[in-house]
Amino acid sequence: MSFAKEFECTLCHKTFEYSKDLMTCPHCGEKGILDITYDYELMKGTVTRSYFKSNKDYSMWRYAPLMSIEGIPKNPLKVGWTPLYPSNRLNRLIGLQKLFIKDEGMNPTQSLKDRASAVAIQKAIEANASVIACSSTGNAASSLAGNAARLGLKTYIFVPKRAPKGKLAQIMTFGSNVVKVDGDYKAAFQLSKIAINHFGWYNRNAAINPHLVEGKKTVAFEIAEQLNFEVTDWVVVSVGDGCTIASVYKGFYDLFQLNLITKIPKLLGVQAEGCAPFYQAWMTHSPIKESEESTIADSIAVGIPRNPVKALNAVNQTNGAWITASDQEILEAMAILGKTEGIFGEPAGVTGLAGLMKALESGLIHGDESVTLIVTGNGLKDTDSALKAMNEPILVKPDLKSFIEAMFNKEEEDNNE
Amino acid sequence: MSFAKEFECTLCHKTFEYSKDLMTCPHCGEKGILDITYDYELMKGTVTRSYFKSNKDYSMWRYAPLMSIEGIPKNPLKVGWTPLYPSNRLNRLIGLQKLFIKDEGMNPTQSLKDRASAVAIQKAIEANASVIACSSTGNAASSLAGNAARLGLKTYIFVPKRAPKGKLAQIMTFGSNVVKVDGDYKAAFQLSKIAINHFGWYNRNAAINPHLVEGKKTVAFEIAEQLNFEVTDWVVVSVGDGCTIASVYKGFYDLFQLNLITKIPKLLGVQAEGCAPFYQAWMTHSPIKESEESTIADSIAVGIPRNPVKALNAVNQTNGAWITASDQEILEAMAILGKTEGIFGEPAGVTGLAGLMKALESGLIHGDESVTLIVTGNGLKDTDSALKAMNEPILVKPDLKSFIEAMFNKEEEDNNE
Repeated sequence: MSFAKEFECTLCHKTFEYSKDLMTCPHCGEKGILDITYDYELMKGTVTRSYFKSNKDYSMWRYAPLMSIEGIPKNPLKVGWTPLYPSNRLNRLIGLQKLFIKDEGMNPTQSLKDRASAVAIQKAIEANASVIACSSTGNAASSLAGNAARLGLKTYIFVPKRAPKGKLAQIMTFGSNVVKVDGDYKAAFQLSKIAINHFGWYNRNAAINPHLVEGKKTVAFEIAEQLNFEVTDWVVVSVGDGCTIASVYKGFYDLFQLNLITKIPKLLGVQAEGCAPFYQAWMTHSPIKESEESTIADSIAVGIPRNPVKALNAVNQTNGAWITASDQEILEAMAILGKTEGIFGEPAGVTGLAGLMKALESGLIHGDESVTLIVTGNGLKDTDSALKAMNEPILVKPDLKSFIEAMFNKEEEDNNE
Repeated sequence: MSFAKEFECTLCHKTFEYSKDLMTCPHCGEKGILDITYDYELMKGTVTRSYFKSNKDYSMWRYAPLMSIEGIPKNPLKVGWTPLYPSNRLNRLIGLQKLFIKDEGMNPTQSLKDRASAVAIQKAIEANASVIACSSTGNAASSLAGNAARLGLKTYIFVPKRAPKGKLAQIMTFGSNVVKVDGDYKAAFQLSKIAINHFGWYNRNAAINPHLVEGKKTVAFEIAEQLNFEVTDWVVVSVGDGCTIASVYKGFYDLFQLNLITKIPKLLGVQAEGCAPFYQAWMTHSPIKESEESTIADSIAVGIPRNPVKALNAVNQTNGAWITASDQEILEAMAILGKTEGIFGEPAGVTGLAGLMKALESGLIHGDESVTLIVTGNGLKDTDSALKAMNEPILVKPDLKSFIEAMFNKEEEDNNE
């Protein structure tokens, strides 16, 4: 059973009785993204520190009572309870005393999006739907395809033309019906919307479906629990359509309402320089404007964010900030994270780190503040980008002399740089 | 502290007092691969079912008392405690009543090899070494690079010329010194051996280093524990140099000695048709002969297995069997596993499934026997192979009419097949 109480429209702030069928605000239409509110007083009876201590389900479903679901799926993929690593070396390198890294690439389809897709599939099952559809630049798609395949649901996935091949391979291996749309993310989103309406499929589009934030927010629950509810001063995350940062806020907000944490961390939203509508809006104190989608961080290349209110609110409410990083800075962050911590993130996955490094340089974040960095997806998703960040290794003849020569030459070159 | 007692040479069967420095048999030389024996009677006092029940370390290090290590690393990557999924749909499709799938692609560098590398690094730290080296077709390398980076150790990695780009991207992102050897795996192995001797680096080559089997065997411990110590009749795993199947056997053997399980599962070793020296030796009752390395399953393309005795012994001791699968069968298995269970395996990762399907068809394994299938690595490691198994998705114009036309045409084509 769920403690969900009401829907509240993020635009007109009208509230509606909670019902599993409502998707967007009846008054504002499609732009009226709904937020789900909970009966925290009632929830307090169930969700306590001792509830967590005795819970042996080390997956996102350990947080079921904090979510808008009627039950949990039977034998799903293991989503969530990804590691929160204390930084061993990166912190000192970038000038932080206390840094934790949440590796969301360790989810079953290797990104944070598994949390949203897992909830979407549970909601589809609750709605007796057997087909789910979404548009996605890649990770939402592969997570939907994988998690749905495991539970026997059919998927239609609308991808933009530029989706990296590695991600397509994963989606197609999961047996999804992939619809490659001749256009950008916007075109894929539009066509998915039309087709979903036409066929009556269950809608996993993150901006429309209010339950997805409720799935993604489990990442904040885990961060808090893994820190023994002593959360860091800041949480840093990359931002595309805004759903993830909105979810991170919602998770900490829930815990704060339940008196499980004593503060909500400040949120740093990091966008790619080539696609930064949130940053632009925040800097210029103006409404969100459509942006180009020009970045290697394809998972956050969203020119028209569909969930602007929740995301802007997340940063404002926490006295957080927005920042951008260039593609070059993103590639450098990828190499630094890999080298110092053994974590391989995709471009969008390490964009948070690129932004964190800039925030430290500019004094926006101080070295004595504690930080949690969310790495949203694994680097194997997009190895072409990773290869851009590296030099091709030297081909060495298979004898010691050639090897030593190659090594010495290389080291001399390194020294000369 | 460790319960390790003695080294026993797999060739001459002489035993030697356990010491952390011995690598191979002093009598037989490099081919005298050592096996580590334990004081099971002493171990029984510590390693009990209640030990596991109260242990909250959900990583491979929960099995530290069963391993040949003096301590455990501080703040390592989270290796192990990967999910063991009960099959939801694959079992019925291939004609099995009871099937479990161990997804080793959920390790931090996305393969089972993380278990071996994690132990190698611990042993290097115990030996006060700061450089570790290995030769590898990819997964041993990326796991060594990632796990070592996290703990601040330097790595040299010798890869054959044909290592897939995705794997190289991962290794290089971890900041490893990659030595691309102009030749095959054999050439890379030879050069690594020479360089390791020359520079006195710590040796992570699986066939030489007796501790690596002790790390990999934790996969068997987990399977047993996740099955509440009621192990399946069979365990199926793909085989390259033989270390993994030897490790699976060792793990079950340990548990059997400790009376924690009542039988050791029969092991099915699956090799790629284009590189099947173990299968050939077993079929012809003759010694292992060098084989070509002609298969897409690059992680198990090992023409000269360096650990033949332990691997052959594993299958013989359990009354198991060997089988091969063609590249086409491997690609089919990849698609079937993805579609039915939402698990994306690399070619070598799903070779076990390809072999299992053939074993069921031929009656080698019966539908009423229970089976655990180990998927050894994630499909994102080698998306080029995955793309070979699929048709390119149709490019659709972004309107409903075009979409429906494309869909209908596709469905008609499907029906005509």
